[in-house]
Amino acid sequence: MAGSSFGNNFKVSTFGESHGIALGAVIDGVPAGLELSEEDIQVFLDRRKPGFNPLSTPRKEDDEVEILSGVFEGKTTGTPIALVVRNTSQKSADYSEIASYYRPGHADYTFDAKYGFRDYRGGGRSSGRETIGRVAAGAIASKILQTLGISVECYTTQIGPVKADLSDYSREKVLSLPTAMPDKEANDRALEYVAKMREECDSVGGVMECRIKGVPAGIGEPVFEKLDARLSAAVMSIGAVKAVEIGDGCAVAGKNGSENNDEFCIKDGKVSKKTNHSGGILGGISDGSDIIVRAYVKPTPSIFKEQKTVNKEGEEIDIKIKGRHDPIVVPRAVVVMESMCAITILDLMISNMSSTLKGLQQFYN
Amino acid sequence: MAGSSFGNNFKVSTFGESHGIALGAVIDGVPAGLELSEEDIQVFLDRRKPGFNPLSTPRKEDDEVEILSGVFEGKTTGTPIALVVRNTSQKSADYSEIASYYRPGHADYTFDAKYGFRDYRGGGRSSGRETIGRVAAGAIASKILQTLGISVECYTTQIGPVKADLSDYSREKVLSLPTAMPDKEANDRALEYVAKMREECDSVGGVMECRIKGVPAGIGEPVFEKLDARLSAAVMSIGAVKAVEIGDGCAVAGKNGSENNDEFCIKDGKVSKKTNHSGGILGGISDGSDIIVRAYVKPTPSIFKEQKTVNKEGEEIDIKIKGRHDPIVVPRAVVVMESMCAITILDLMISNMSSTLKGLQQFYN
Amino acid sequence: MAGSSFGNNFKVSTFGESHGIALGAVIDGVPAGLELSEEDIQVFLDRRKPGFNPLSTPRKEDDEVEILSGVFEGKTTGTPIALVVRNTSQKSADYSEIASYYRPGHADYTFDAKYGFRDYRGGGRSSGRETIGRVAAGAIASKILQTLGISVECYTTQIGPVKADLSDYSREKVLSLPTAMPDKEANDRALEYVAKMREECDSVGGVMECRIKGVPAGIGEPVFEKLDARLSAAVMSIGAVKAVEIGDGCAVAGKNGSENNDEFCIKDGKVSKKTNHSGGILGGISDGSDIIVRAYVKPTPSIFKEQKTVNKEGEEIDIKIKGRHDPIVVPRAVVVMESMCAITILDLMISNMSSTLKGLQQFYN
Amino acid sequence: MAGSSFGNNFKVSTFGESHGIALGAVIDGVPAGLELSEEDIQVFLDRRKPGFNPLSTPRKEDDEVEILSGVFEGKTTGTPIALVVRNTSQKSADYSEIASYYRPGHADYTFDAKYGFRDYRGGGRSSGRETIGRVAAGAIASKILQTLGISVECYTTQIGPVKADLSDYSREKVLSLPTAMPDKEANDRALEYVAKMREECDSVGGVMECRIKGVPAGIGEPVFEKLDARLSAAVMSIGAVKAVEIGDGCAVAGKNGSENNDEFCIKDGKVSKKTNHSGGILGGISDGSDIIVRAYVKPTPSIFKEQKTVNKEGEEIDIKIKGRHDPIVVPRAVVVMESMCAITILDLMISNMSSTLKGLQQFYN
Repeated sequence: MAGSSFGNNFKVSTFGESHGIALGAVIDGVPAGLELSEEDIQVFLDRRKPGFNPLSTPRKEDDEVEILSGVFEGKTTGTPIALVVRNTSQKSADYSEIASYYRPGHADYTFDAKYGFRDYRGGGRSSGRETIGRVAAGAIASKILQTLGISVECYTTQIGPVKADLSDYSREKVLSLPTAMPDKEANDRALEYVAKMREECDSVGGVMECRIKGVPAGIGEPVFEKLDARLSAAVMSIGAVKAVEIGDGCAVAGKNGSENNDEFCIKDGKVSKKTNHSGGILGGISDGSDIIVRAYVKPTPSIFKEQKTVNKEGEEIDIKIKGRHDPIVVPRAVVVMESMCAITILDLMISNMSSTLKGLQQFYN
Repeated sequence: MAGSSFGNNFKVSTFGESHGIALGAVIDGVPAGLELSEEDIQVFLDRRKPGFNPLSTPRKEDDEVEILSGVFEGKTTGTPIALVVRNTSQKSADYSEIASYYRPGHADYTFDAKYGFRDYRGGGRSSGRETIGRVAAGAIASKILQTLGISVECYTTQIGPVKADLSDYSREKVLSLPTAMPDKEANDRALEYVAKMREECDSVGGVMECRIKGVPAGIGEPVFEKLDARLSAAVMSIGAVKAVEIGDGCAVAGKNGSENNDEFCIKDGKVSKKTNHSGGILGGISDGSDIIVRAYVKPTPSIFKEQKTVNKEGEEIDIKIKGRHDPIVVPRAVVVMESMCAITILDLMISNMSSTLKGLQQFYN
Repeated sequence: MAGSSFGNNFKVSTFGESHGIALGAVIDGVPAGLELSEEDIQVFLDRRKPGFNPLSTPRKEDDEVEILSGVFEGKTTGTPIALVVRNTSQKSADYSEIASYYRPGHADYTFDAKYGFRDYRGGGRSSGRETIGRVAAGAIASKILQTLGISVECYTTQIGPVKADLSDYSREKVLSLPTAMPDKEANDRALEYVAKMREECDSVGGVMECRIKGVPAGIGEPVFEKLDARLSAAVMSIGAVKAVEIGDGCAVAGKNGSENNDEFCIKDGKVSKKTNHSGGILGGISDGSDIIVRAYVKPTPSIFKEQKTVNKEGEEIDIKIKGRHDPIVVPRAVVVMESMCAITILDLMISNMSSTLKGLQQFYN
Repeated sequence: MAGSSFGNNFKVSTFGESHGIALGAVIDGVPAGLELSEEDIQVFLDRRKPGFNPLSTPRKEDDEVEILSGVFEGKTTGTPIALVVRNTSQKSADYSEIASYYRPGHADYTFDAKYGFRDYRGGGRSSGRETIGRVAAGAIASKILQTLGISVECYTTQIGPVKADLSDYSREKVLSLPTAMPDKEANDRALEYVAKMREECDSVGGVMECRIKGVPAGIGEPVFEKLDARLSAAVMSIGAVKAVEIGDGCAVAGKNGSENNDEFCIKDGKVSKKTNHSGGILGGISDGSDIIVRAYVKPTPSIFKEQKTVNKEGEEIDIKIKGRHDPIVVPRAVVVMESMCAITILDLMISNMSSTLKGLQQFYN
């Protein structure tokens, strides 16, 4: 079966394994006429690069992107854009041992169960490196959204027990601090905590949040292609994510309607809401407020502590994982979540173009 | 755009509005040879019927299903099964007022923003009655899964502040108690709480959980069609759901890898896990353990308290919603979540049939 | 697997069997705001009704359509439109015999091979009655196209050896003559020929052509969703069609480039073509000329002559088919082809709305 | 919109332009465990290479394929296979002139109309080189089909007025003769005819046929995903194809039912047919006979004769196309048609795996 594509009208297909020849994406449905260069994409890829900050794996890769198609004289042509990043720093030797057993928390066993064997080098297709294609596509979606006045910004809100204070948010902090938190003080405490856990051969989970501003009301389809349903799929499809919230998320379960309802009001002559518990989505359709999505990320399963597991011969064994592994994936996953949200929003905005006969008639007249 | 279908190979398309002529579904991709009668489907529909329990709206509907196609001599033929439930108890008069303003927490405003106007009777397409089609399809998916030894069971775990104790779980309690909780004592406290809130003209949120047993390891596709991504979309597409968790869900963010990893072991000669923090899914693929999904449901937005909002003329007004409204949707939504999970699992099991060349060769030899 | 849907953004799903409870379609992606009544659809359905003309089966059905959803206060709401036609004139007894053997030229054997058994009444899902759903959807697509200045007209060009002269084409002739030919004289000769063949217990094939006027240049996607590829699939999916041509079709194989190329010129200040060998499509994209598609239809396989075949027990037998069968399907298939072409054009016009960034920006500003 | 993918469960997405950096395909849904090397694919690509025979353009390209992903230790892993062919022999200078005007018979005008501008180098995305990705994918589909006992063989049956005699068919002739005809004598006459037309600065059309042996009865879905509908779309999506026939094709229009029906019989204890007018497909589903598809290909639009056209300024001008152009595309298109048919058959065979409950149950038990 074919499950490596995302989107209906702006369609992203990724390919590639951690230690194969190359990873990348084909993006079909990019409107013609967008100025696009490799630099636009590289900026996004650099945010997820390994070796970028003290939290990440010592493996250093250039992750240099090449545009193979779909751009002519600096502009998109409307035809598929193929993007490739060659793997250059694989040390397959590191992984030879794991071929024989199933690492706890990893997809080793499930891949074997599904396919009969697996590319065990660095997790193969289940590696976080698969997201290179998503981020490359997200760079393009984000650039298009910008021209429509829409911003998509993702950041870390929690690492282990350390929560960021969002009250003094700035994009600059997110892009410059190694935790991708918009809070210098929390960033520092989080770094300390992670360093301590790394010493203990353990790893750390966290939370990231994405805020999308400027989406007009009316985006998202009422039933199965609800904006929140599509965002959930987009975000939950990122490796280590185990929960997704929209707006107030889990907290709504304990609230009453009178607390949770957002009353409408008129602001600057437009329909607006006094609060935003809904996270910008009502009935699966954007309501014009900021769209807020949150993702809960599990601690990196590759830990250096001794663990019990089984091998392919069906024997119970003790293992100690070696190699290069981030003790936390959140800071690097932030740009992946941002990318998936941008792709989702753009895809649904395109789909929305035919919602009314009037829109269709105006387009063709 | 077309967003009313779900699934790739077992495809469910729903149609219908709260107060239109009829609601229903077309299910394309039902394997031939399944014994199927209207009774099989009615049992599921009855679980979501209004008027079923003290918590639900006094509106009584028969919600009687008719199979229009795809079944011959009591068995599915492999062709699309169209299922229709006619609306019989609409009191459109109740809703005439809401045509003029936007109810807080409802999709009134977003539908108007998207389509230029809306079927305001009972929420139209955004009504919970849309789920009739899903539940009808879920009945069929569940029946097929049963023949494969798979059970899908959903239940209420929380209503407002009242949490159910799951330690003495039984399906019977879920199906017989009005809260759909597997805990009689919590059920009683929850009923009291809801009654109190109803008196205060307010409404209540809650949590439901679905446990899927018997799914073999290997189901789900590695990237965008991950089992957890698909389940998230399925569940988040249910009206009032604002958060979705897999396994330990949000809690993983605060854990360390050594706590969160599930160690593999051998049980009854098979690969198994000592714990199930992962909720039965690793790398987007089932690992053979129970699959666990949780959904957080907001309080019914229709409350009888006075609320502020705006009308279509752009004036700020005070409103008091009348009509028939459940103070909590969770007990009736339980069968909807169960249905969406069953549909998702079956669809991915079908897709998985071509994962290996060996499987393809055995099928055709 | 699920193969009963057609279209990406204007999506038609049909259901129903010849002698089941009902047939119909769900159309998802109809833009909101179109005035639509059952009458609009009935006009199309009446063109494919049995008993309409001397060529068709004596079986008389009302084929009365009911709109179940998606229309409110006389206008489409943007949500799925479910359309149902109940079967009222089934004489299942007529078909009991064919349950036991495979009629030559029919799908009896292939359905059994695929599904293990079949709904043998009137061909079940393989019956021409399946096209009721397509025609109902086509009525809606055609009405939308009309508001965009596009006409889709299909007619018979050949019945057995009798070819129509198209030089004095009028839509009125097509809609009023029983052959759906735009040529009274050929119509009369064709009627005679068919009557003669009917007497000989035999049946007749024919050709139909669809001409689509007013489609702007630029519709169709360059590779797999080429306008001609999609039209071919649309037309070849109609039961008895065995060949599809675009423009000059088969004749191009024997031509030279200098004969076949359409030279561009300027007409009324716009880019135009001196000839239209291409049938209005270049590189899979409409070129602004009339789009021309032709379909070759096999003679009705149900003939009253004795034929040899095999039964389900694997014995060779002689059969004589009884019942009600048109000796030619073309006149009634004309509206089916017209419908499929309208659906295809509209779907691709919607898809084309996001071809350029400029279009996207204008839509959202 | 996104139209560069083909297939539901075996999904091929192509990318690339004639004179861009590279062309290729991503194939998602390849079953795991197939032995696959670049050599398997190169054999197919070499059959469509330019410079291969006296009929083709003097442009010589290596068209060397590189597998970027999806293969590990010589076997497919079940994850997407990305295939890339770098462009090495582009002479973009040749094409600079055509940037300013619209070549008759080409997609220059329609691309401009759709996208606002175009990659004019060698036709950009509308070039025949786009089919490199299809052929690469076809090589994989064919290899899988072979393991199931299915052969897909395509050949030339007509070039200009010269028709091949198929009575002494051999695959060897098709693969070795420059026309890809299975008839040495016709091949020689066709070469002469093409040489003469080339001298006259003109080009030639032709016909190709594909015969698929060994497909079991039951493949194809009854309505819109009919085997013949899917094959038509597959074949009509190849650049210069203007007509598609299944079995007797156009000829059925003039036949009677008694001539056209294929009577069933028992051969070697199995249900068989005495004739094969149907081309192996009944009701959209394979009937176990050879599947026969024919495609009619227009003469190459690039001719060296003077032609009239218009330029982007809207002026009527005379042009003489220069550069490297085959006077006939058929011989090189044969492997493209073979590939598209193989992809279609395999995709529908995979989809068919869930047609019966029994099949599903056997798979999972």
